[in-house]
Amino acid sequence: MPKQVVPASQRSPHIVVIGAGFGGIAVARALPKDANVTVVDQHNYQTFLPLLYQVASSGLAADQIAYPVRAALRGTSANFRLGTAQRVDAVNQVVKLADGTDLHYDHLILAAGSVTNDYGVSGVSEFAFGMKSLKEALTIRATFLRRFEELASAIDDGREVVPLSVVVIGGGPTGVEMAGALAELAAGPLAKDRKDAASMISVELIELGDRILSTFAPELSDRAAKDLGSLGVRIHLNTPVESVSERAIGVAGAPSIPANLTIWAAGVRGVDLGSVSGAVAANGRLVVDETLRIGGAENIWVIGDLSGAIGPGGRPLPMVAPVAIQQGRHVARQITALERGKAIEPFVYKDKGSMATIGRHKAIVETKHLHFGGFVAWFAWLGLHLVQLMGGRNRVGTLADWSWNYLTFDRGNRHIIDVE
Amino acid sequence: MPKQVVPASQRSPHIVVIGAGFGGIAVARALPKDANVTVVDQHNYQTFLPLLYQVASSGLAADQIAYPVRAALRGTSANFRLGTAQRVDAVNQVVKLADGTDLHYDHLILAAGSVTNDYGVSGVSEFAFGMKSLKEALTIRATFLRRFEELASAIDDGREVVPLSVVVIGGGPTGVEMAGALAELAAGPLAKDRKDAASMISVELIELGDRILSTFAPELSDRAAKDLGSLGVRIHLNTPVESVSERAIGVAGAPSIPANLTIWAAGVRGVDLGSVSGAVAANGRLVVDETLRIGGAENIWVIGDLSGAIGPGGRPLPMVAPVAIQQGRHVARQITALERGKAIEPFVYKDKGSMATIGRHKAIVETKHLHFGGFVAWFAWLGLHLVQLMGGRNRVGTLADWSWNYLTFDRGNRHIIDVE
Repeated sequence: MPKQVVPASQRSPHIVVIGAGFGGIAVARALPKDANVTVVDQHNYQTFLPLLYQVASSGLAADQIAYPVRAALRGTSANFRLGTAQRVDAVNQVVKLADGTDLHYDHLILAAGSVTNDYGVSGVSEFAFGMKSLKEALTIRATFLRRFEELASAIDDGREVVPLSVVVIGGGPTGVEMAGALAELAAGPLAKDRKDAASMISVELIELGDRILSTFAPELSDRAAKDLGSLGVRIHLNTPVESVSERAIGVAGAPSIPANLTIWAAGVRGVDLGSVSGAVAANGRLVVDETLRIGGAENIWVIGDLSGAIGPGGRPLPMVAPVAIQQGRHVARQITALERGKAIEPFVYKDKGSMATIGRHKAIVETKHLHFGGFVAWFAWLGLHLVQLMGGRNRVGTLADWSWNYLTFDRGNRHIIDVE
Repeated sequence: MPKQVVPASQRSPHIVVIGAGFGGIAVARALPKDANVTVVDQHNYQTFLPLLYQVASSGLAADQIAYPVRAALRGTSANFRLGTAQRVDAVNQVVKLADGTDLHYDHLILAAGSVTNDYGVSGVSEFAFGMKSLKEALTIRATFLRRFEELASAIDDGREVVPLSVVVIGGGPTGVEMAGALAELAAGPLAKDRKDAASMISVELIELGDRILSTFAPELSDRAAKDLGSLGVRIHLNTPVESVSERAIGVAGAPSIPANLTIWAAGVRGVDLGSVSGAVAANGRLVVDETLRIGGAENIWVIGDLSGAIGPGGRPLPMVAPVAIQQGRHVARQITALERGKAIEPFVYKDKGSMATIGRHKAIVETKHLHFGGFVAWFAWLGLHLVQLMGGRNRVGTLADWSWNYLTFDRGNRHIIDVE
């Protein structure tokens, strides 16, 4: 097995960051310019996950929500390593990569993110699409558009037409945005393409609890539900999914719901990096102390979706980009302090609010002091996501596509591209 | 097997177009608004093939050179059918689709285009990448960038570094543009990413004849060769390729050329639609008369790359977009004339010239009266391709990416996306 060669007279401690998502890139950018940093990711690009549903619903090109990791690291001293971290050997301070390489570290930041969590519901991995990667988004897009073409062909041939029942499971922001965008795609551009075929498409949303977007204020949930309804999305509340099969979704204590295209947006869990410390919290997140370090290890930090950090109310922090970014910057500062022999500080999350978009002119925004929806919220959503998109190129390209979609009521990326 | 249901009182003859490339779309758009037209293609999008090399070399997103067929057909009466034509039954006037459907036609336009032609050279299909589809372009991009990352990892690990030898076979416009763009990518953005790894990449171009771009005037060939040389591309002339293997290209009567990433741009042939008429010309193109119809068949027309139409000098017309578009419009006019009981006319190709781009500020243009190269030619190339790109969205997005690439010397789409 090849072993990473580290010069004996290493100028500074080797800081290894696993994951080039929001958190990992934030760490690398916040570390001093002379730090010795390696960022590891299985992709050579960062995925802007908040806009994944727009790729799935033909609003954006896949490349527009991706950003090369090496470009994100320009101006830093960090090196990039394309590879998959499989296991951490905390005793020997080594990360084992899938290609057999041992990567030695002095500080290790685990920012590997999350994967789809099926909570043990049978059939999810076989019959439902996840919403965690470009591959999944392009697969949803290709499947949805191919089914639409099959509807059109069946009508042309005078064959029996089986309606396309799209069911999104999970009424959080991902599920709500996905359901709204697919309903808009069917009612707008696809109806212009083939009205008869598009009218055979229905979109439904299943939520376990008694309202969608349950982390928002109740009146915003209501508004979002009304907005989704106006797009033709049928919402099932208080609906515990028991199983997913090819043509239906099994519900505990109720009739099953017909579905021949199921999207699972009901939850995620921290990725499995082997037993780093033995302490795994709920949802596969790693238990950390208030400095974001794994108990007993002075040099293993966990941030973002993978981190089981506890917030003010004693509840785990949400799995969202602002948490990962703030934690990344915090850890960078603490490592710098440690290396200079200074004391380190606990992490405190500053919640700047949250937002979700439902469709054209429809969104909700909630901050500490403000709750609002409608056109202004939608515009705020657009602006914030444009600003957050890394790199001018993605901003310009996304703005171009959004302007086009907005002005023409069209979605230009209706291309069936099959990914591996 | 399902059979296309055609109402007995069909209002007008059914015109079936096989292929939604430049030719097929041109036919559909030029037919009268009340014509009964079906366009068949295996993809739900048209691929702008002249810019495929820019997707392969990270300059553009895949979606930017694709355009939904249904969007291209808006404003016409044409219907779209997603499917693959397998065979034509000229006796019963039926096209057999791969899904088992029989599509009856009164007029049939074969515009199915071309596929890679290996001219019997062994190893091309196993060890070389073609340049005929989005899938192939994204595969070249992913492979090239992954090899670059492997170089960086090998250097980091102190392992043996095997240089990346990219060899493009075929010195026509496709090969020249591909070689130039990959050399620019390596020398620019990748060198900024990792200078040591990028310096291990070489790009070479193999041409059978005694000059590249042999359809252009000799002085333009020379200029292009000089331009490619300034980008670091090594050109092998008079080099007959005998075989392609994983690590080398066999040359008749000369030492083999090391290559661990081979791109085959040496030629294409008409797609195989079974024996439509029995008469197949060179390169798999179907023999047609001067009205572009297959001999003996009054209602089967062949246009574009698949058409063996003969030009003024007795030579087959080139396999380029302007030929397909002019032929498409011509056939639409002739069918309309026929249906109105009027006489039809032979097709005459109006050659407006050709161009090729080599790199930043480098291109050549040749028309009947003008030969020129350099910055002006490059700018003309940019403008013409922007105008030709279908739909405002693709134009705006491409202009955004090109401006970004130009101003920053970067290529923003350096993402490894694996397609099926």
